[in-house]
Amino acid sequence: PGAKDVLIANQRLITAIVNKDWATYDQLTSDDLTCFEPEARGHLIQGMEFHKFYFDNLPENAGSVNTTILDPRARMLGNVAIVTYVRLTQFMNDKSPQTSRSEETRVWHLVGDKWVNVHFHRSGAPSAPTS
Amino acid sequence: PGAKDVLIANQRLITAIVNKDWATYDQLTSDDLTCFEPEARGHLIQGMEFHKFYFDNLPENAGSVNTTILDPRARMLGNVAIVTYVRLTQFMNDKSPQTSRSEETRVWHLVGDKWVNVHFHRSGAPSAPTS
Amino acid sequence: PGAKDVLIANQRLITAIVNKDWATYDQLTSDDLTCFEPEARGHLIQGMEFHKFYFDNLPENAGSVNTTILDPRARMLGNVAIVTYVRLTQFMNDKSPQTSRSEETRVWHLVGDKWVNVHFHRSGAPSAPTS
Amino acid sequence: PGAKDVLIANQRLITAIVNKDWATYDQLTSDDLTCFEPEARGHLIQGMEFHKFYFDNLPENAGSVNTTILDPRARMLGNVAIVTYVRLTQFMNDKSPQTSRSEETRVWHLVGDKWVNVHFHRSGAPSAPTS
Amino acid sequence: PGAKDVLIANQRLITAIVNKDWATYDQLTSDDLTCFEPEARGHLIQGMEFHKFYFDNLPENAGSVNTTILDPRARMLGNVAIVTYVRLTQFMNDKSPQTSRSEETRVWHLVGDKWVNVHFHRSGAPSAPTS
Amino acid sequence: PGAKDVLIANQRLITAIVNKDWATYDQLTSDDLTCFEPEARGHLIQGMEFHKFYFDNLPENAGSVNTTILDPRARMLGNVAIVTYVRLTQFMNDKSPQTSRSEETRVWHLVGDKWVNVHFHRSGAPSAPTS
Amino acid sequence: PGAKDVLIANQRLITAIVNKDWATYDQLTSDDLTCFEPEARGHLIQGMEFHKFYFDNLPENAGSVNTTILDPRARMLGNVAIVTYVRLTQFMNDKSPQTSRSEETRVWHLVGDKWVNVHFHRSGAPSAPTS
Amino acid sequence: PGAKDVLIANQRLITAIVNKDWATYDQLTSDDLTCFEPEARGHLIQGMEFHKFYFDNLPENAGSVNTTILDPRARMLGNVAIVTYVRLTQFMNDKSPQTSRSEETRVWHLVGDKWVNVHFHRSGAPSAPTS
Amino acid sequence: PGAKDVLIANQRLITAIVNKDWATYDQLTSDDLTCFEPEARGHLIQGMEFHKFYFDNLPENAGSVNTTILDPRARMLGNVAIVTYVRLTQFMNDKSPQTSRSEETRVWHLVGDKWVNVHFHRSGAPSAPTS
Amino acid sequence: PGAKDVLIANQRLITAIVNKDWATYDQLTSDDLTCFEPEARGHLIQGMEFHKFYFDNLPENAGSVNTTILDPRARMLGNVAIVTYVRLTQFMNDKSPQTSRSEETRVWHLVGDKWVNVHFHRSGAPSAPTS
Amino acid sequence: PGAKDVLIANQRLITAIVNKDWATYDQLTSDDLTCFEPEARGHLIQGMEFHKFYFDNLPENAGSVNTTILDPRARMLGNVAIVTYVRLTQFMNDKSPQTSRSEETRVWHLVGDKWVNVHFHRSGAPSAPTS
Amino acid sequence: PGAKDVLIANQRLITAIVNKDWATYDQLTSDDLTCFEPEARGHLIQGMEFHKFYFDNLPENAGSVNTTILDPRARMLGNVAIVTYVRLTQFMNDKSPQTSRSEETRVWHLVGDKWVNVHFHRSGAPSAPTS
Repeated sequence: PGAKDVLIANQRLITAIVNKDWATYDQLTSDDLTCFEPEARGHLIQGMEFHKFYFDNLPENAGSVNTTILDPRARMLGNVAIVTYVRLTQFMNDKSPQTSRSEETRVWHLVGDKWVNVHFHRSGAPSAPTS
Repeated sequence: PGAKDVLIANQRLITAIVNKDWATYDQLTSDDLTCFEPEARGHLIQGMEFHKFYFDNLPENAGSVNTTILDPRARMLGNVAIVTYVRLTQFMNDKSPQTSRSEETRVWHLVGDKWVNVHFHRSGAPSAPTS
Repeated sequence: PGAKDVLIANQRLITAIVNKDWATYDQLTSDDLTCFEPEARGHLIQGMEFHKFYFDNLPENAGSVNTTILDPRARMLGNVAIVTYVRLTQFMNDKSPQTSRSEETRVWHLVGDKWVNVHFHRSGAPSAPTS
Repeated sequence: PGAKDVLIANQRLITAIVNKDWATYDQLTSDDLTCFEPEARGHLIQGMEFHKFYFDNLPENAGSVNTTILDPRARMLGNVAIVTYVRLTQFMNDKSPQTSRSEETRVWHLVGDKWVNVHFHRSGAPSAPTS
Repeated sequence: PGAKDVLIANQRLITAIVNKDWATYDQLTSDDLTCFEPEARGHLIQGMEFHKFYFDNLPENAGSVNTTILDPRARMLGNVAIVTYVRLTQFMNDKSPQTSRSEETRVWHLVGDKWVNVHFHRSGAPSAPTS
Repeated sequence: PGAKDVLIANQRLITAIVNKDWATYDQLTSDDLTCFEPEARGHLIQGMEFHKFYFDNLPENAGSVNTTILDPRARMLGNVAIVTYVRLTQFMNDKSPQTSRSEETRVWHLVGDKWVNVHFHRSGAPSAPTS
Repeated sequence: PGAKDVLIANQRLITAIVNKDWATYDQLTSDDLTCFEPEARGHLIQGMEFHKFYFDNLPENAGSVNTTILDPRARMLGNVAIVTYVRLTQFMNDKSPQTSRSEETRVWHLVGDKWVNVHFHRSGAPSAPTS
Repeated sequence: PGAKDVLIANQRLITAIVNKDWATYDQLTSDDLTCFEPEARGHLIQGMEFHKFYFDNLPENAGSVNTTILDPRARMLGNVAIVTYVRLTQFMNDKSPQTSRSEETRVWHLVGDKWVNVHFHRSGAPSAPTS
Repeated sequence: PGAKDVLIANQRLITAIVNKDWATYDQLTSDDLTCFEPEARGHLIQGMEFHKFYFDNLPENAGSVNTTILDPRARMLGNVAIVTYVRLTQFMNDKSPQTSRSEETRVWHLVGDKWVNVHFHRSGAPSAPTS
Repeated sequence: PGAKDVLIANQRLITAIVNKDWATYDQLTSDDLTCFEPEARGHLIQGMEFHKFYFDNLPENAGSVNTTILDPRARMLGNVAIVTYVRLTQFMNDKSPQTSRSEETRVWHLVGDKWVNVHFHRSGAPSAPTS
Repeated sequence: PGAKDVLIANQRLITAIVNKDWATYDQLTSDDLTCFEPEARGHLIQGMEFHKFYFDNLPENAGSVNTTILDPRARMLGNVAIVTYVRLTQFMNDKSPQTSRSEETRVWHLVGDKWVNVHFHRSGAPSAPTS
Repeated sequence: PGAKDVLIANQRLITAIVNKDWATYDQLTSDDLTCFEPEARGHLIQGMEFHKFYFDNLPENAGSVNTTILDPRARMLGNVAIVTYVRLTQFMNDKSPQTSRSEETRVWHLVGDKWVNVHFHRSGAPSAPTS
């Protein structure tokens, strides 16, 4: 399981976030996932409840959101991988198109033969489009 | 009744605030509760009426608010406990997710075998989500 | 008729303002009442017509406004009393709670056995909640 | 026809403006009225058409506007009078009360036995309430 | 055909703009009309298509717009005239009156016995009221 | 000792403030003077120390400050007087002239044959010119 | 003494202001001059002291200020004249040129054979350049 | 196939964008089109998916948008052409007309006998009108 | 050791802060002092090093700072005391006086016969004057 | 004397402005030159004094200003020419380069065999660099 | 080499940054270090040159900067460690104290017996104090 | 001469800009270079004079500027190359580090055996650091 596999896992994770697919998200992340992200207002978040809020409450965007992953890279350190990329999110705000950008680092751990996301750090725009 | 008990009482109090459960809030707080909070515009508030306004008037948020208590600590000084924590409140503003943050100190007093909140100090965001 | 009485009169006056009870307001104030207040844009107001505008035009707030009088004091100078206090007004702006604050001085005159408000000076927020 | 008369004429003019009573306004003003006012964006206005626009287009405010004339003075120079005053206009903007203030100079000319307004200069707020 | 004629033509042109009367506008202007105006964002516009957009798309203002031409002057240079004036436009924005101001230079050319506008330069506010 | 006397005392007090003449200020005010003023950030100030700070620390303005008292009035209530006025302060800020305005209420008490200021309320600009 | 004379007097007055020539200013104005101007923050000023402050305190601008009087008009009402004009003041702010504009009305009274300014009203920019 | 042809192709491309005609746009652009544009927030975009989002999601503007191409130039370098122009877009925002401006460089490649757009760079306003 | 003693200790602590007297500050506070304050940007501070920075680096204000403690209260819970007050700090910023305000809660613990500050919470302005 | 000549004259005029060469400027312009420009705050300027202020007061920029004339055009109407162009001015503001842009129309008149500028209209940035 | 060792290495790295000690910084980081940080304006930085700029150019802060590491944690994944913490930086800006805050993730790799920082991600404030 | 050569030429060009080396810059660019860049305020620049202004006037930055070229790519179209990259410029503003970012497209033409820059388009920050 090399760089290619972890990038595939990473892409599946992003797709799950975009589609609000909690089952896949939950399966690809560690229960004790930690993160820094703009939504956390300067504090480290531990566990899944904070993230589940967005899956439960965000409205459907059906078709009007497009996510572009720029320059994805996986740095392999044995059974750990550091994935970095820039995420552009295009969405419609009323009738006006918007693009938000964030920089993301995700650290993946190979547990058995499965890559699990154990930590991430996002800066820039929050994950969900905000009007 | 030690640190564990007072943290449980503190968590029940926060749950009561989130759920707008006045009966529980009233039971866990002293009638002569004092506080400094952003809502008080620089003055010490005494008694319960000021707080009851929020229980009576805030709209129902049913399900779309999530409260995270970060790093809760209880410092025990005999039958007094100083509880400190950071509170993150996730909520939906129209269709857009928001997070507000406040730092809170609550001083609890053990009266008989029951912990009672006698003073609190909040800084940062007000307790209720504000759009 | 001492400090206690004038504070009671003062409290009745504030209650009349909150309840838009013109009859009581009119009875507790001198016909040639003078005032400085934010609504007057830097000029001294004389008489009652300026104030009556608010009683006639402000919408009903039924239940969703709470007034707190902080630190009321009466300084007795014979048949004149200087009452000072800070007024906090909690109200709902759409679904979001707000607090406004003003500092108020009211000068009362004992005419016969009745206290009459002859001058007031308010700074800070206007008397009526403004969204 | 002295200061008292011209102040009465001035008050009638203001009442005509508030009530959108064009007939009275037209009768009290000279056909070649000149003015500087905020609505004119830095230029001298001559004649009546500019002013008539407001009479024709402003919505009815029926009852919810109160005009206070502060410190009216008439300086008599033979058959000419300089009237000065500050005008406060209280009005409701949605459900929130507002006060606008303007300083006004009006020059009146005694033609026969009738006072006619030949020039005015207003600074501060425009004549009509603006939300 | 002197200054008086060109000022009349100029007034007809402004009336055509206010009334969205394309036929008259088209007749009074040269096909290769050039202009600088705020709407053109710093570039010279050539021809009629740019201007026709406003005739085709602006909403009807029927009655609630008043245009005042201040200090119109025509400088005659043989069969060319430079017309300058300030234009005030009063209009209702929701229920609130507004005034916009622009400074305009129009160069007219006498072709046969008819004055034709060949170039204009407007600064200040755009031609159409903008809310 | 009537209205005239208290207005003279009031003027002496203002002159003392302008001149930073502590001895006169101290003599004309009660030791337990109370006040609301912008400098106090929403709290009632008691006693003299708060005020003395300005006498001790403000720089000399020698000649470049002019104070105008507009419309001073004294309302007599036996041995108490309510003095109201608007204060304009002209001063030089670098090389540019400024005017600040405040509305002031001062309550005076006749003790023996001497008027003593026992309370004041200022709104608008602070007492000292601020650049 | 007709329109021409009063315009000359008016021009002399403006020149006196620009040159900080108090003697001429004093001679051309009535001792009980009244005015509304931006420097007065919404109040009528009476007398000369307020104006003298500027003569005493403004710095010398020797040569680097240019005043343009646009469209001066005198409306004659017997021995009273209403003079209106727009004043542009060009000045250097550090090394950068600025222009300020004000609209002014001045009422002149013919006393004996001399025109005296008895009231003025200025809106727009203050009289002195402000950086 | 010279400058004239490539300018025709360029104009067809812009028309396709304005009309949201994906088939034509797709035919005139290279599959590995690259671009810098404001929508991309500082990153190079590769391929077609990013652009297709706008064709799929932008609302119809039917008739109320006008595009002006200013000063189009084609610089021929053999089978490569650099096309530069400024684009003005007039559109209605509610009832108010707006103009946005962008500067655009498009590099075209002659493949066989057909010009294909391989790279573009836009600065200034985004391509779609934004309210 | 009652309320009076703890208020004295609290006053000594504030004096030590104002005077930058580290020895006294150190003696009155617990080594494991905790706090929330604006300077900590939303995080709980533990220990003394964070505070010592201010003692080491703040400039001398010698004489030009005045601290007013408003409405100090001590709530006694056995050998624990909750002290609340509002602190006003007057200081000179260049030549202009400023006032900053903070609300403070300090929890004191009686260790042997000595009161020790174990936790504080400040909201509003930071402790040191900031220009 | 055709388009070429008038463009040369126009270029000489701009060079004179940049170089603060009053003699040349004076020679190329009509004594009764009129203009609209940002410096005139919405009013038509007549004559030369207003412009001379800049020649007399602007500091020397020796070498650190560069003027670019974009897209100059002359439209010939017999002995009258309408010259249009965009002017870019690069200059150093402290150590930071700036560019300002203006759109300009200049109307030239052939008097004898000499082109004279009789009117101009500038929008956008003022003529002189402003920091 | 466990969590304790990597936290020590991490602390040494921060100390090196604070002290501008390039030798130590260089020794603790991988030559192909990658990072996202606010200074990089949304792009991934690779290698050391970008970072060295700060070591070469930042001024000495000798003693007036204090760094606090809050809640440092090391998550061990074999020979990889994810270190997270919040960094507070106190510094003097002129004479006024400031605090900046950043959230940081650093990924360390155990190479031989030495921990090397291979990637970091900072959000919030830049690393160096900015006035 | 392939992609490698053109990237080397491109790097030399950037180095020349950073070093203010006009001779090299001049040699690597076409005399009829065209460009769109923020400095040009929405207009196409032709020729070298506009660019030379920066070489002549920008201050020396000796050592305190660092330029990073991110993700440089050369797309080869026969003897034409499209080079794209993101440029980060780190510089010191007073004592505070700054980073500016621009996106750049440069089109190179192979003339003989030498690559010459014929057009560029920059968006984002201007080329020179601006404080």
